[in-house]
Amino acid sequence: MKLSERQEEIIRLVKKGQPVTSEALAEKLGVTRAALRADLAILTMIGVLDARPKVGYVYLGEAQNTRILENISRVLAGEIMSKPVTVTEETTVYDAIVFLFLNDVGTLFIENNGILVGAVSRKDFLKNAIGGTDIHKVPVGVIMTRMPNIVCGSTEDSAYDLAKKIIEHEIDSIPIVEKIGDGLNERPQFKIVGKISKTNITKLFVKLGEGN
Amino acid sequence: MKLSERQEEIIRLVKKGQPVTSEALAEKLGVTRAALRADLAILTMIGVLDARPKVGYVYLGEAQNTRILENISRVLAGEIMSKPVTVTEETTVYDAIVFLFLNDVGTLFIENNGILVGAVSRKDFLKNAIGGTDIHKVPVGVIMTRMPNIVCGSTEDSAYDLAKKIIEHEIDSIPIVEKIGDGLNERPQFKIVGKISKTNITKLFVKLGEGN
Repeated sequence: MKLSERQEEIIRLVKKGQPVTSEALAEKLGVTRAALRADLAILTMIGVLDARPKVGYVYLGEAQNTRILENISRVLAGEIMSKPVTVTEETTVYDAIVFLFLNDVGTLFIENNGILVGAVSRKDFLKNAIGGTDIHKVPVGVIMTRMPNIVCGSTEDSAYDLAKKIIEHEIDSIPIVEKIGDGLNERPQFKIVGKISKTNITKLFVKLGEGN
Repeated sequence: MKLSERQEEIIRLVKKGQPVTSEALAEKLGVTRAALRADLAILTMIGVLDARPKVGYVYLGEAQNTRILENISRVLAGEIMSKPVTVTEETTVYDAIVFLFLNDVGTLFIENNGILVGAVSRKDFLKNAIGGTDIHKVPVGVIMTRMPNIVCGSTEDSAYDLAKKIIEHEIDSIPIVEKIGDGLNERPQFKIVGKISKTNITKLFVKLGEGN
């Protein structure tokens, strides 16, 4: 693991004037406190700095063995995915919302003869519920995000890479799919086998610290 | 870090018959594959097992230095929290939903003279939008979850402990608060200064693996 230039600079500043508050660090580096947060978090996790509440950051020592961090990207999506909840395109928006609540999930996936054709999030439903859509008549197929405009993953992707995609694309979950047929002459088709959401990633993060 | 009995049993089984698929492990242990996922993920992350796609698990060696995992719980909520988005109790449900979309957040917090009095999630809004509530007339104060029935945290809680609370209570986010006044003779009151959501935890997880 290589530290960034800014992380090295933070270490120098803390070594020199410890304890140093994050406000003081932000001022010295000419950035906002928010911009520093991620760097301070990573330096704390690798054991270089310690955050003392109401005091500031102190220097602890050289970065510890970071092989564990490298292993994080070895956990596969297939190991931690949840079951997807699916409905068909013809389901009314109202019935789909009820199904969403009954299954207590944040996203419904839409299947057509076993093929993933779309996705609808709680946010999409809310937008339509207040936007004048006749939710008792309009089928969910009308309001869904349609394939291929859905970010998908496979069971063999790392959970880490999918977490990155969730953050980059600002989405709540990613369907885990398997390709169907040879797809030589047609648009590729996919079967949904699972999903990875921020909940799965948060659970994995909690697992990481267990037993300590 | 201490491994659980089941994790030790998994290691024994993999050592004996590697490569071993998770299906085979689940069968031998008499549990579902889903029940094994978390154990397999943790054993992969600490470098004991390797998950080979389409092959199965193989044994790599003794658990590596797990001090990094212990450090995870040293990252404080104050280091990674986001800004909370707040409205007052009198805001109509409709206006609050519009505000939710404009700020692109999942939860609104309700303030009364600078005091946190409630919270409303996207799920609460959706329930009311389809449930016959006159969203143009009813104020958000009527549908919100009211203090003290909200799980709160402080800037000095570890992000790890709050992630655990998010999973245990099945909530999306936790307001980060500061106590106001001495609270000797009255019900304690809190000012909201931030929030920690599954998004913050997912971002922290992504940070963990950066630079590798």
